[in-house]
Amino acid sequence: MSATPLALAVDFGGTKVEAALVDADGVLLPGSRHRLPTGRTATVADLEASVGGVVRDALAALPEGATVVGVGIGCAGPIDRRRGLVSPLNVPDWRDYPLRDFIASVAASLSLDVPVTLEMDGVAITMAEHWVGAAQGVDNVMGMVISTGIGGGLIVDGRVITGPTGNAGHIGHVEVGATRGEDTFGAPYALEAIASGPHTVAWARGEGFTGTTGEELAAAYAAGDEVAVAAITRTGRAVGHAIASATALLDLELVAIGGGFSHSTPDLFTHMREVIEAHYFPFVRKVRIVPSALSSEGPLIGAAALIHRSALLPANPRD
Amino acid sequence: MSATPLALAVDFGGTKVEAALVDADGVLLPGSRHRLPTGRTATVADLEASVGGVVRDALAALPEGATVVGVGIGCAGPIDRRRGLVSPLNVPDWRDYPLRDFIASVAASLSLDVPVTLEMDGVAITMAEHWVGAAQGVDNVMGMVISTGIGGGLIVDGRVITGPTGNAGHIGHVEVGATRGEDTFGAPYALEAIASGPHTVAWARGEGFTGTTGEELAAAYAAGDEVAVAAITRTGRAVGHAIASATALLDLELVAIGGGFSHSTPDLFTHMREVIEAHYFPFVRKVRIVPSALSSEGPLIGAAALIHRSALLPANPRD
Repeated sequence: MSATPLALAVDFGGTKVEAALVDADGVLLPGSRHRLPTGRTATVADLEASVGGVVRDALAALPEGATVVGVGIGCAGPIDRRRGLVSPLNVPDWRDYPLRDFIASVAASLSLDVPVTLEMDGVAITMAEHWVGAAQGVDNVMGMVISTGIGGGLIVDGRVITGPTGNAGHIGHVEVGATRGEDTFGAPYALEAIASGPHTVAWARGEGFTGTTGEELAAAYAAGDEVAVAAITRTGRAVGHAIASATALLDLELVAIGGGFSHSTPDLFTHMREVIEAHYFPFVRKVRIVPSALSSEGPLIGAAALIHRSALLPANPRD
Repeated sequence: MSATPLALAVDFGGTKVEAALVDADGVLLPGSRHRLPTGRTATVADLEASVGGVVRDALAALPEGATVVGVGIGCAGPIDRRRGLVSPLNVPDWRDYPLRDFIASVAASLSLDVPVTLEMDGVAITMAEHWVGAAQGVDNVMGMVISTGIGGGLIVDGRVITGPTGNAGHIGHVEVGATRGEDTFGAPYALEAIASGPHTVAWARGEGFTGTTGEELAAAYAAGDEVAVAAITRTGRAVGHAIASATALLDLELVAIGGGFSHSTPDLFTHMREVIEAHYFPFVRKVRIVPSALSSEGPLIGAAALIHRSALLPANPRD
């Protein structure tokens, strides 16, 4: 049993919410991880039931004598960091929803009165990579998740960049030239509209692919299917171009990429790197692109990092 | 006569190098500003003669009893911040040229032995906007220059972002979707390839414009010429898209834009703002785009800020 102070970590996403207790070494307390559904069609009451449920379930695993020193929440963006509000793109019923206060009130109802910190999930995952993952010891990092959507976070000169509203790191909404994606949100050149799992599959279907999931596309790629190869190449190159732009702007040293669709094939990374290696600036060519070194626990470890590694975060002048 | 400590400010660009003495309020010492040519075809000896010349000319204006506390150098990128080397894109004869050491040696030959700081010109100009220009009191700022090229610099959470190599801020090399520019450096979607003065003029010429300079294009715009209107609209929108990407990534509050071509018409700013106002993220829509509040002295004030405002810069672990 862990003897260190614990953080209650909460990760809220478009399909599920999870919570767990995480110690000061970034290790999840066995038995403390719980998950409940969220989703596009969930009402505010549904969402509160799920969030409250996982918070209570995780805290029920608190060993006698152990101490929870804070609650860290990673949430799909956009957010309002100062006021603790969230408006996850894929959860239409939550717009400026006070998630930080809601979780604080659930915790208070369980006699837990500790600091509660809310940041974008991309910020949290980047802190996890920097803490115990692929970006340890690197001062200029972008963490990325390529999954249903594309998100990210930034560490610059050893400090986490949240931005004043908490929305720094939206790499999925950086534009990429040449490749036109689907017209989501009226932004067909945003990286996410080109290179997320669903958008990659949609493009492949337009070229004749008959599957419907990223897993099927990965299987077709492994079997040498021509359309799947073209789709993975196109997505890998688009991600490479977005990383080139972010590196031109931020002089990054390392990009660590996780998320379900990033596991399709290691060749996805090869295509990203080909774009970087062909760049005209040496300082762009220097950026390394590596797979995440975190398991599916990454987002929860990141949420815990908001507490255990809070010194890396900018101050938050609250209301 | 200024009673405050003085910085020797040097601004090195693709067509000229300037130097001046600047006091701790960001004011140039009258009579200390000097300029000599650089350029694409200049040899290393030519460039050293010009740089050495303006440094000596500026220092010759040093009033009796006044003190120079440091030398600040802003230089066209890319640079190597740690080693003080420069490789300005438009000055082919300088690749990894030791500009910091060269200027230090010129200063030493004049018995001036003080700290010498080298950063990208975009970093310097952004510090000038933050110090005495349009970005005073704003913590999350991008400074931009739209001229022969497009450059920039970043202040995030009140601190200057240089990047580990010194090249953070290359907004001109961020990609923009949809609009294809000229194929400079093999990067036709880089903002600079679309929206710099010369590239805007080149596009207009392709559409039938017969002028050859940005000034002529601005005059044609003022006269209501249809191609000039289309060219300015296209360039303004491309800059707006790049600012949207940078804001998605960095949650910027303000972008301050100077440079010769930015003065073509205030409508250029209107087109940028239209892109921002139509964005789907409120945190992107919040960014304000304003003209630089600096005169042509801006780059020199910025170079002086490297000394007088050095606390905003990250440390530089030199060789």
